[in-house]
Amino acid sequence: MTEVSNQTPLSDDELRDMDCYWQASNYLAAGMIYLRENPLLREPLKPEHIKNRLLGHWGSSPGQSFVLTHLNRVIKARDLNMIYLSGPGHGAPASLAHAYLEGHYSEVYPDCAENEDGMRRFFKRFSFPGGVGSHCTPETPGSIHEGGELGYSLSHAFGAAFDNPDLIVALTVGDGEAETGPLATSWHSNKFLNPIRDGVVLPVLHLNGYKIANPAVLARIPEEELEMLFKGYGWKPYFVSGDDPALMHRKMAAVLDQCLDDIAAIQKHARDNDDPARPRWPMIVLRSPKGWTGPKEVHGHKVEGTWRAHQVPVTDAATDRKSLQIVEEWLRSYAPQTLFDEQGKLIESLRALAPQGTRRISANPHANGGVLCKALDMADFREFALEVKTPAASYTSPTEVLGRFLCDVMRRNMSNFRVFGPDETASNKLTAIYDASGKTWVADFEPDDADGGYLAPEGRVMEMLSEHTLEGWLEGYLLTGRHGFFASYEAFVHVIDSMFNQHAKWLEKSKKELSWRLPVPSLNLLITSLVWRQDHNGFTHQDPGFLDVVTNKSPDVVRIYLPPDANCLLSVADHCLRSRDYVNVIVADKQPHLQYLDMDQAIVHCTKGIGIWDWASTDQGCAPDVVMACAGDIATMEALAATQLLREHFPELKVRFVNVVDVYRLMPSDDHPHGLSDRDFDSLFTTDKPVIFNFHSYATLVHKLTYRRKNHANFHVHGYRERGNINTPLELAIINGVDRFTLAIDAIDRVPKLHGIGDHAKEWLRGEIIAHQAHAYREGIDSEEIRDWTWSS
Amino acid sequence: MTEVSNQTPLSDDELRDMDCYWQASNYLAAGMIYLRENPLLREPLKPEHIKNRLLGHWGSSPGQSFVLTHLNRVIKARDLNMIYLSGPGHGAPASLAHAYLEGHYSEVYPDCAENEDGMRRFFKRFSFPGGVGSHCTPETPGSIHEGGELGYSLSHAFGAAFDNPDLIVALTVGDGEAETGPLATSWHSNKFLNPIRDGVVLPVLHLNGYKIANPAVLARIPEEELEMLFKGYGWKPYFVSGDDPALMHRKMAAVLDQCLDDIAAIQKHARDNDDPARPRWPMIVLRSPKGWTGPKEVHGHKVEGTWRAHQVPVTDAATDRKSLQIVEEWLRSYAPQTLFDEQGKLIESLRALAPQGTRRISANPHANGGVLCKALDMADFREFALEVKTPAASYTSPTEVLGRFLCDVMRRNMSNFRVFGPDETASNKLTAIYDASGKTWVADFEPDDADGGYLAPEGRVMEMLSEHTLEGWLEGYLLTGRHGFFASYEAFVHVIDSMFNQHAKWLEKSKKELSWRLPVPSLNLLITSLVWRQDHNGFTHQDPGFLDVVTNKSPDVVRIYLPPDANCLLSVADHCLRSRDYVNVIVADKQPHLQYLDMDQAIVHCTKGIGIWDWASTDQGCAPDVVMACAGDIATMEALAATQLLREHFPELKVRFVNVVDVYRLMPSDDHPHGLSDRDFDSLFTTDKPVIFNFHSYATLVHKLTYRRKNHANFHVHGYRERGNINTPLELAIINGVDRFTLAIDAIDRVPKLHGIGDHAKEWLRGEIIAHQAHAYREGIDSEEIRDWTWSS
Repeated sequence: MTEVSNQTPLSDDELRDMDCYWQASNYLAAGMIYLRENPLLREPLKPEHIKNRLLGHWGSSPGQSFVLTHLNRVIKARDLNMIYLSGPGHGAPASLAHAYLEGHYSEVYPDCAENEDGMRRFFKRFSFPGGVGSHCTPETPGSIHEGGELGYSLSHAFGAAFDNPDLIVALTVGDGEAETGPLATSWHSNKFLNPIRDGVVLPVLHLNGYKIANPAVLARIPEEELEMLFKGYGWKPYFVSGDDPALMHRKMAAVLDQCLDDIAAIQKHARDNDDPARPRWPMIVLRSPKGWTGPKEVHGHKVEGTWRAHQVPVTDAATDRKSLQIVEEWLRSYAPQTLFDEQGKLIESLRALAPQGTRRISANPHANGGVLCKALDMADFREFALEVKTPAASYTSPTEVLGRFLCDVMRRNMSNFRVFGPDETASNKLTAIYDASGKTWVADFEPDDADGGYLAPEGRVMEMLSEHTLEGWLEGYLLTGRHGFFASYEAFVHVIDSMFNQHAKWLEKSKKELSWRLPVPSLNLLITSLVWRQDHNGFTHQDPGFLDVVTNKSPDVVRIYLPPDANCLLSVADHCLRSRDYVNVIVADKQPHLQYLDMDQAIVHCTKGIGIWDWASTDQGCAPDVVMACAGDIATMEALAATQLLREHFPELKVRFVNVVDVYRLMPSDDHPHGLSDRDFDSLFTTDKPVIFNFHSYATLVHKLTYRRKNHANFHVHGYRERGNINTPLELAIINGVDRFTLAIDAIDRVPKLHGIGDHAKEWLRGEIIAHQAHAYREGIDSEEIRDWTWSS
Repeated sequence: MTEVSNQTPLSDDELRDMDCYWQASNYLAAGMIYLRENPLLREPLKPEHIKNRLLGHWGSSPGQSFVLTHLNRVIKARDLNMIYLSGPGHGAPASLAHAYLEGHYSEVYPDCAENEDGMRRFFKRFSFPGGVGSHCTPETPGSIHEGGELGYSLSHAFGAAFDNPDLIVALTVGDGEAETGPLATSWHSNKFLNPIRDGVVLPVLHLNGYKIANPAVLARIPEEELEMLFKGYGWKPYFVSGDDPALMHRKMAAVLDQCLDDIAAIQKHARDNDDPARPRWPMIVLRSPKGWTGPKEVHGHKVEGTWRAHQVPVTDAATDRKSLQIVEEWLRSYAPQTLFDEQGKLIESLRALAPQGTRRISANPHANGGVLCKALDMADFREFALEVKTPAASYTSPTEVLGRFLCDVMRRNMSNFRVFGPDETASNKLTAIYDASGKTWVADFEPDDADGGYLAPEGRVMEMLSEHTLEGWLEGYLLTGRHGFFASYEAFVHVIDSMFNQHAKWLEKSKKELSWRLPVPSLNLLITSLVWRQDHNGFTHQDPGFLDVVTNKSPDVVRIYLPPDANCLLSVADHCLRSRDYVNVIVADKQPHLQYLDMDQAIVHCTKGIGIWDWASTDQGCAPDVVMACAGDIATMEALAATQLLREHFPELKVRFVNVVDVYRLMPSDDHPHGLSDRDFDSLFTTDKPVIFNFHSYATLVHKLTYRRKNHANFHVHGYRERGNINTPLELAIINGVDRFTLAIDAIDRVPKLHGIGDHAKEWLRGEIIAHQAHAYREGIDSEEIRDWTWSS
C-alpha cells in the first residue's frame, strides 16, 4: 500500500478548528433534514419544530463534509483553483451546508441569510415543496453535477478538467455509484488527460460500506484487491480509514498534502519537460462509517456505520418522545451555540477556515460555466459550401462536408472546443477534423499508430469506446463553459438516453428558474450511421427511436434537425454551435447522398425549417392533389423519386413537395417555440388533401407532433417499422414502406381522381419492387445501385 | 504474473491437427467475406468469384477461431458441458465457421450442406441480402449473444452460468467492448456467483490491439497494470501472448488446461466442503495480432496486426489484379484442398477433433434455452388476493402484495427463478421475497449484514447497483431457459433502453423466423417508484418515457400493462410469468394506493385489458356525456376523484368511467394483436363524445396509439409534462394537469351542455387547486393527505 508519513501537517489548534467546522457542516446537514423551526436549538426541541415529513439522506453527508472541510484547508494553504463534484446519491446536504457556511448560499439566495431566520429558511426549503432536492441540483451553488442518477461524477469531473490547466476537480465517488458501468469504465479517463494542457481530477472514493440496503461491492473486497484494482486502473491510491475524528483529521490532512504534492510534481515535470507521458495520478480511498457522528443506536438497532444510516436515521421524532430526545441529543452533540454567533452566523474563527471570494468551492466560476464561456471563433460556414448546380444530380457524403467545417472550427478554437465520438469519427466520415487535431491519447504508443491513427497527447478529438464516458466528458466540458460536438451511431445513442434525459432536465431548471446560472453552450449531438444504410450490421443497428426520447423533454431545451443534404447540414451545424442551453440533435447520414440545395437555398430552407421545394412540385399556383412531405436524407430521396414516378405516370397530377428540416415546426406553436401557427401549417399541408409523409424515424412520431392539426386525418406517414436484417438500402426501404414505389402507390390510392385509372401504374410499381428484391438476392448488396437515379426537371 | 508450466499438453500430431482445424475455420471465415463462387478454390480465383460488395470483419475472427479450436480440445478431453459467447463486434465468421465445421450448421440449415455447393451457399449468405449478419445473430446455432451493440457479453455469460452447476460458459471479450461501462463493471459479477450452485464463466480477454480505428485502452497499458486490474477485479489472469502459431498453440493448450484444473479444484473444494467463499476464478488474456494469418501487407501498408485488419483487409479484389492475387494467395495459404475432401466436407481426421452431438458448442442445448425450459411451478395467484369489499375505500402498496406472490413463486422454483433489482428490492416494497430467499452475495460479510440485509451465498435475489449488469444477467438467464423478474425505478430504466431494444430484436427474429429456436420465458420488467411519487427525489427521478421506447418495438414481442391496483397487478404478474418470448413491461407503484377491484373483478378486468367500471359510471343504459378514461394507478385515482367531483356538482351528468390495463388495447387491431377492433373501441369511447384521458406517462403516447380511431379528435389526454421538482404528490399532479380538479374542469369545458352553467363549479375547483398549493408550501410534504379521499358510491 502506498505509504504516507504519519506526521500530520495539522497543529492542534488547526485540528480543533477544522473539527469544529466539520461539526458545523454536520449540524446543518442534520438540521436541514429535521428542523422547520428552532434552527439553532435555542429552545428545547419540540415535536412542532420537526418537519411534517422527514426526507433526505444523512448517510453520505458527514463523509463528504469531512472531505470538503479538508479541501478548504488546502485551497487556502496553496491558493488552489478547485471545484468539487458530489457523486453519492442524495449527498446534497454536505454541499449545501458548505455553501451556506461559505456565505455564498446567502449571496445567491438572500432570503437564506446568515442569521437565525435565514438558517430556518435554509433548513425548511430542503426537500420541502417549492424548495430544493436532496441531490446537488442546479439550485446548488458550486455544483455542475446533480447526480440524481448515478454513474457520471468521474466523467463529468474529467470533462471539467480538460483544457483547464490550473483547475483541480475534486470529487467524491460513492461506493454505490462505483458499481455502475459508466463509473467503472470512467476510471480509464486518465488515459485521455494531458498533464501539460489539462487540469487534474482528484477522486475520493468514499467507502462508507452500504448503499440503500446492501453492502457495496468495493467495500467488501480485501484492501489488497482494492489497491490492485485502482493501480490496475492506472491510479496511485492513498487510503484513509477509521472512525475516530481526531485520528482521521490527521490522516486526511497528511494524505491530502501528499496528493497535492504528487499533483504539483507531476505537473511540474510534465510542463517543464514538455513530457505528457501518462502519470499515475493520486486518488484517495476514504473508509469512514456511514452516517458518521450520527446516532449510534436507535430502538435497539445499530445505526451509525450501517445501512440504517442511509436516509433518515430517526424517523419518528415528531411522534416518539424517545426519538425526539435522540435527535435533540444528536443535534446538540455538535454544540451549535459554540459554532454560530448570536445572530446565527458562523463564528469568525471558523469563517477564517474557508477560502475567500471565487476560491470558495461554492463560488468558483468554473461551476457556473456560462460566466467563463467565450463564443467560438467561427468562419462563415458558407465557405465550406458544396457546389450544387442542379438539384438531385450528384452524390456527396454530408458528414464529409461537415468534417471540413468542424476542422476549421477546431483550428480556430484550440483551447475550448473538442469533438467526441466512440471510435467512430473516421467511420462517420468526419476524418477531416484530424487535419486540425489528432485523437487524444496518453496511453502507450506503437509505431503503426502514427500512420492513420493520428494519436497524440495534444489531440482534441476524444475517442473511447464508451458513449457514457464521452457524454459525461462532454457534459462536464460544456457545463464549465466550453464547446463540443458529439457524433454517434444512431442505434447506439440509446446507450445514453438516460444521460440525455438528465442533462436536459439540468438545462431546463438552470435556464427557466435560475437567472444566476448563465447560459452554457448547447450539447450538439450528431446522429449518423443511420438505420437506412446498415448493410451487414443488420437489425441490431436499426433503431431511429432516440427522437422519441428527445421529444418527451421540455420544448425549452430540445431541438431536432434533419438536414436533407450537405449544405443544409452545414447551416444547421453553424446554428447549433452558436446556440446556448439546448440539446441539439442533428440526424444526418455518413454515406454519399443526393444533394439538392445550393448554399443560399439551404440557408433559406433551414432558417424556415420547413418549406415547399418548388422545383420538385407540380402544383404551381394552384391547390395540390396530394402533398408529398419528408424529413431525413433517405426519406427525402425516396419521396422525391416518388414524385418523379408520379409525374411520369400522371403528368397532370398536382404534387406539392414539402421538406422538413426542423421537426418541431410540425408541432403546434402553443406547444413548442418552433411550432408553426395553424395558419402556416395549413397553408403548407392544406386542410383536406392527402399528405404522404416519408419520415426518417418511426412514423408515429409525426403523428405525435401533428395530431392536433386540422388535416391530421389525411396524414399518411411512412417510417421505420422494425423490419430488417441484411438488406440493400432500397430493399430495406421497401420492406418498411419508405421506398419510392410504395410512396407512389400510396399517393395513387389516396388521390380520389386517380381511383381506377391508377391501377396500371400501381401494377408496374409493384413489379419494380419485386424486380429489385430478386436482383438484390441474386446479385448481393450494392448500396451504389440507387445512384443511377437523378432528378430530371 | 501467474505462471504456467511451459510444458504443453499437446503432442506434435495433436498440435498439427489442431492447427489444421484452425486453418480450416480461418479459411471459412475469410471465404464468407469474399467468395460467392468457387468456394474451395478448385479453379484459379477470378473477379467474378468475388462478391459484389465485400462486407464483414476479419480482424477478430482468427483469434476467436483459435479460442474455439482449443475449447474443442478440452471439451472432448474432459467431456465438458460448455457454451461460448462471442463478445467482439462482428465476430460471427469464427462462430459460423465452427458451427459449419461441427456439422451442426448443415443440420439446422440443410441448404448449407457439408459439400461444395453447401459451402458456396454458406459463404454467399453471409452479409448478403436475405442472409445472415456479421454478428452472432439468433440465426447462429450455439449463440445466445448477438453482440451488435457492445458491452454485455460477460453479464450474459454469468446469467447463463447461474443455477447451471455443470455448465462452463466460455466467452471472448473484445478489447473494444472492454472499454464500455457495462462490460467494465460486469467483471465484478464474480461476487455474485456461488461455486456450489452455479456453473462457471471462463472469460478470454482478446487483446488484438485495435478497435475500428483506434488502439484499445487495455492493450496499451503495461502488462503489470493489466494484471493488477484483473486481480483487483478478483480474477486470476493467465496470459497467452504472441503471433507464432505453433508456440501459441502450445501456450494456449497449457493455459487452458491450467484454467480447467483451477476450475475443477475450486468446484471440488466448494462442493465437497460446502464452502461458497468467493474463489479467484481463472481468466485468460489472449494477446494476438488483429487479422492474424491474414495478409501482412496490402498496397504498401501493414495490415496484419493493425487496425487495417479490422474489416475487409483487401477491398478491391474484384477490380485490382494485384489485390485479387493477394486474396488468392491468402486463401490458398490455408491449403483448403488438404482440409476438405472431394465432396467438400472437412476431412475425417479433423472432424474427429470436434466434440460430438450436444457437446458441440454450436449444438449445446443451453444455447437454445427453450429446449431445456421448464414451466414455473406456480400456485393459484388468487390465494394472494387482497380483500377489497368496497372500491376506493382502503390503501395498500400494490408491490407489497406482489412481493408475497413472488415469494411463493420463488419458494416453489428454487433452481430456475430469480429476482433482479438494483439495490431497490426493499425500497420497492418487494421485501416479502426475502422470506423465500436472501440476496446473493459471495463477497465479504460483516456482522450487521444478517440483521436486515438477508445476504447469503445461496440467495436468489440479485442486487447490484448496475441496471446494465442485472439486465445482462437476466437476459442470459432467460435465453438459457430459466425465469426471472426485474424491478427498477421508473426513471432509471432508461439506463437499459438500448439493452431492451436489443433483446426485443433478438426475440423478434427468434420467434418470427427461426422455428428451431424454441420459446424462452419472457423478460418481465416491473417499473416502479413512479414519477408521481418522488417526494425529495425531485425532477431527476421523473421520467415515465420508457413506454415510448417500448412502443417502437415490434408488436410481436412487447406488452405493456398498467394495473390500477394490487389485485390487477397480481393477475397481470401471473400472466406475464407464464408467458414466453415477450418483454412484459408492468407499471405499478410501490406507495400505498387506493384499491378498487376484488380478485374476481380484477381477473375479468385484466383479461379484457380495458373496461368500463360501472360502479364509477353514471351513464347506465344511455349514451354518456363524457368519457373519463385512465391508465395507471395515480392516474386512475385522480380520474375517479374527478368523476366524483363532477357527480357532486352535476348529478345529472352522464359520466362513463373507462380504465385501461393493457395499453395496446388502444392500438388498432391491425397494428397490434391486442388491439381492439374499431367497433369495440368505439363502443367504449363513443364516436363523438369528449374523452378525458388521464395517463400515467407522457400524454402523446396515447395519441400515438389512438390517432387512427374515429373519436380521436375528442381525446383530451393528460399526462406528465416534464414539470416538477420537490412537490407533494397532489401538487405534482396539479402542475402537470393530471389532478382531479384539472380533469373535472376539462370535462366541464368539453361537455357542451355544461357551457355557462359550469362556471361556478370551475371557480370552486380552481380555488381548491390554489388552496392545496398554499397548504403544501406552508405545511410541507405529506403524501398521506390524499388518503382522506375515498369513493362514496
